[in-house]
Amino acid sequence: MIRIAIAQLNPTIGDLKGNAQQILEAAQRASQEGARLLLTPELSLCGYPPRDLLLNPSFVEEMSKTLLNLATQLPSELAVLVGTVDLNVRSLQTGGKPLFNSVALLEQGQIQQIFHKRLLPTYDVFDEDRYFEPGDEANHFVLNLSSESTQSIHIGVTICEDLWNDEEFWGKRTYHLNPIADLAQKGVDFTINLSASPYTVGKQKLRESMLKHGAIRFRQPMIYVNQVGGNDDLIFDGSSVVVDRQGNLVCRACGFEADFVTVDYDFEKRDFLLSSIVPEPECDEAEIWSALVLGVRDYARKCGFSKVVLGLSGGIDSALVAAIAASALGAENVLGILMPSPYSSDHSVGDALSLAENLGIQTQKLPIGQLMNAYDQTLEELFAGTSFGVAEENIQSRIRGTLLMAVANKFAYLLISTGNKSEMAVGYCTLYGDMNGGLAAIADVPKTRVYSICEWLNRRDTSELIPANILTKAPSAELKPGQVDQDSLPPYEVLDDILDRFIHQHQSAAEIIAAGHDSTVVDRVVKLVTIAEFKRRQAPPGIKITDRAFGTGWRMPIASKRQSY
Amino acid sequence: MIRIAIAQLNPTIGDLKGNAQQILEAAQRASQEGARLLLTPELSLCGYPPRDLLLNPSFVEEMSKTLLNLATQLPSELAVLVGTVDLNVRSLQTGGKPLFNSVALLEQGQIQQIFHKRLLPTYDVFDEDRYFEPGDEANHFVLNLSSESTQSIHIGVTICEDLWNDEEFWGKRTYHLNPIADLAQKGVDFTINLSASPYTVGKQKLRESMLKHGAIRFRQPMIYVNQVGGNDDLIFDGSSVVVDRQGNLVCRACGFEADFVTVDYDFEKRDFLLSSIVPEPECDEAEIWSALVLGVRDYARKCGFSKVVLGLSGGIDSALVAAIAASALGAENVLGILMPSPYSSDHSVGDALSLAENLGIQTQKLPIGQLMNAYDQTLEELFAGTSFGVAEENIQSRIRGTLLMAVANKFAYLLISTGNKSEMAVGYCTLYGDMNGGLAAIADVPKTRVYSICEWLNRRDTSELIPANILTKAPSAELKPGQVDQDSLPPYEVLDDILDRFIHQHQSAAEIIAAGHDSTVVDRVVKLVTIAEFKRRQAPPGIKITDRAFGTGWRMPIASKRQSY
Repeated sequence: MIRIAIAQLNPTIGDLKGNAQQILEAAQRASQEGARLLLTPELSLCGYPPRDLLLNPSFVEEMSKTLLNLATQLPSELAVLVGTVDLNVRSLQTGGKPLFNSVALLEQGQIQQIFHKRLLPTYDVFDEDRYFEPGDEANHFVLNLSSESTQSIHIGVTICEDLWNDEEFWGKRTYHLNPIADLAQKGVDFTINLSASPYTVGKQKLRESMLKHGAIRFRQPMIYVNQVGGNDDLIFDGSSVVVDRQGNLVCRACGFEADFVTVDYDFEKRDFLLSSIVPEPECDEAEIWSALVLGVRDYARKCGFSKVVLGLSGGIDSALVAAIAASALGAENVLGILMPSPYSSDHSVGDALSLAENLGIQTQKLPIGQLMNAYDQTLEELFAGTSFGVAEENIQSRIRGTLLMAVANKFAYLLISTGNKSEMAVGYCTLYGDMNGGLAAIADVPKTRVYSICEWLNRRDTSELIPANILTKAPSAELKPGQVDQDSLPPYEVLDDILDRFIHQHQSAAEIIAAGHDSTVVDRVVKLVTIAEFKRRQAPPGIKITDRAFGTGWRMPIASKRQSY
Repeated sequence: MIRIAIAQLNPTIGDLKGNAQQILEAAQRASQEGARLLLTPELSLCGYPPRDLLLNPSFVEEMSKTLLNLATQLPSELAVLVGTVDLNVRSLQTGGKPLFNSVALLEQGQIQQIFHKRLLPTYDVFDEDRYFEPGDEANHFVLNLSSESTQSIHIGVTICEDLWNDEEFWGKRTYHLNPIADLAQKGVDFTINLSASPYTVGKQKLRESMLKHGAIRFRQPMIYVNQVGGNDDLIFDGSSVVVDRQGNLVCRACGFEADFVTVDYDFEKRDFLLSSIVPEPECDEAEIWSALVLGVRDYARKCGFSKVVLGLSGGIDSALVAAIAASALGAENVLGILMPSPYSSDHSVGDALSLAENLGIQTQKLPIGQLMNAYDQTLEELFAGTSFGVAEENIQSRIRGTLLMAVANKFAYLLISTGNKSEMAVGYCTLYGDMNGGLAAIADVPKTRVYSICEWLNRRDTSELIPANILTKAPSAELKPGQVDQDSLPPYEVLDDILDRFIHQHQSAAEIIAAGHDSTVVDRVVKLVTIAEFKRRQAPPGIKITDRAFGTGWRMPIASKRQSY
């Protein structure tokens, strides 16, 4: 029997010293628990994604020193796999990128072996071809049970994307080669995959099916170790798993939090034994909720904020974000600002206050009527003869945005913006107004999903955490008397379906119309999405929960023109 | 003799119909002028960079149809090379990206041949591995003098980056292969390079040296065709050139504007004859000026704006931006807004008005004192007991940003922001305040360069276009009484040198200190740059003039931590 420990770590990007310390602590625990090998996620030393920090030679050098220093501190009798970058020393002579995305095998105070990632994702939020040269050989090593033992196991090593090119599972190839197949040919006892795989809704089910498929197809157990934590827009959901040779799940670590688990490999059975299995989230809403809470908590923590502020409009978006923030940082660290205008409905303040009471967060009220008048007066001469329109509506939103930033600046709060994905898509939001914030908590959550998460929250708590009126009233920006969202937009069920087809499924307008949507509505929505590009370019990072989020993985031109969509 | 025409086009991204029309018009002219072959830039059909438009199958399909349709409209007896994407039909079976970055040879109503780009830039602003599979063979074709003639030339075809891997010229390899060397081995008569090569200061000199080096090394003439125009943050500077077999420049097209030129290849001499040579810009300042003017003009035009608005503070940054805007769009289409506060110096309004008079632009004055009071009153209770600080300074900037957006929204102006690169680097700017705008005209121009461009402008015009006082007074944000930039920042000569080393040269703090800078200053600047990441993430596109601009080519984590730099 040999025990393998999995450290499902939450590194901070660039914090080499802090991340090394996390690895060291996990190694000490692994040693105490009798493990022979400790696994950590992809790039565990620098955190994933390090992005352009990798372009600084001093950062790469510091990483190398930190790795060597860590090697000397690790418990003897423990082998540790650490994610790090490695120099491509031949690149100046033969061409190619200067670095590899690598895993170092540390043992007995030294780097024993180093493995290079072979498949480099360069799509969506991934830019690995920007930094890395692909490894050109199958990665594997032999581990003895102990320094005296002759018993040993042969382990295949893959890094994240290396796992994701099984043409039988996907029905197509993405890359020219499949590292898992290569390792199976080498006759390894099992394969490990060290990952930093970002969360999207339902992705864990997909990962587990893929792992099971791979285990059965190649008749080998698989250990998948994932990073956990929020890094700007990306949430890493952990949920590391082990599947045995028959494709059965024998271990699952926590989702959305750091974890440490061990699994035992039985030499006789040539397989892993059943270990602990954390249950799956009860539904998509529960899963998304966990992702968003982690995203807000980690962004605040890793940026050095303990408190957040947000605008409470009495609407459902800010209600959900307030609930997320309270769960992430504690209700006592959340401040909601109510900023009613003369156009605000009576219920907007009342609903916001009920919500705040339910959540236990503090509020402040800053009415904006006086400021609206001051802007009107300042602009009176210039705007003479024009009628109330988008300019005036935006001023209200920008007054609120300015007040929120004033509070954030004055008291060192992180401002969280509250816009949802449907709004961000069609530009139903004000740049420098309600879009203001360091983080956009629900910018990748469509409006219909905002409702379903709030409904789930109320079911979960068996109390009305989100006041019923917020769930039932017609959504409104309240920027002019009697305004409701559906004056300008199709019903959200319709809008969200069109957006899903256009944005996620890459359907053309013609295809969306062919699917049964009204052509005028489709053309209008598609046009709105295109026009709003300039707003999204200036949006704060939004927590990504879908496979096509606005942000780092959405790279659209602004000054462009298309005849058809 | 055979005549070759070069269409240095300015496409609009995604405007397949409009771009095809431009190609057609160039073809008609080429035909009239007796050319046998017309060259257009890389991806001339969709414009470069098309970015994620390429992820929409309907867009790719539309491009293919447009190409076929264009082929049927071209003059007979003319061969035309058009930049387009091509489907990688084998990708589902063998893996690899679904598209090629290609050039189609159109003749006699059909696509005669298609060539694939071999070296795909994936660094800085380039993301070609995200979309494209590299071509795997040397691209060349044979062109007869006419359909009756037996005389023919053998032409090598390369696309942009294919040119940029001469290990003798660079002293190192970036890619594993060199397409130019491959073509020389094929014995082509000359090689063409169809490019969309973005402008950076001094890059044209580098390109011409590289082309001359290549011509001499491989004993073959080279034709380099570049796109022209501004596409969001990127400026394509045109300046297409032809070098003969000895490496002599025999043709240079205009910089920073669309152009059409022809060159004649002499069969006897086996070389190009001298054609027209547009002179180089007189100095870096003149070159940068042209780039910025083109950038503002094209961004406005391609986004559908004819007029721009900006804040005129009386400082040098807004003075330069106003001058750029007036040159780009005509003085009558530029509106400067003066927004003095009680902290504004007397000269701020006076200097701004002198500038506006020199430029011939309109101004409006919107004093912000009343709005400052209204914010103070609204926040009085909440801010009680705190002292004046960054929160209050930012409010002033955000009032101005809101007023500018109100004017922009009301009258359909494009707001241009005026911050320089030094400010953007250290965060000496207010998010949702002076950073507001659709385009940041000088966000990649360091403050010291802002001065030198203004000084050059005054020399060029032999009049004081930028009022002397703007050039000589101490820079100040004027957000509190008596404030000057150097209260918070080192002198700009020092700051810009540190920033250049840190940002462009990737030097560590230790290296910058070793170069003679004060360690306290360096540590502070480096820290400021890091902390300001959240502001830059939400900045408008800034016109790129250096090899390391903030924006699409600057991909830094926000929530991160480093022990040393």
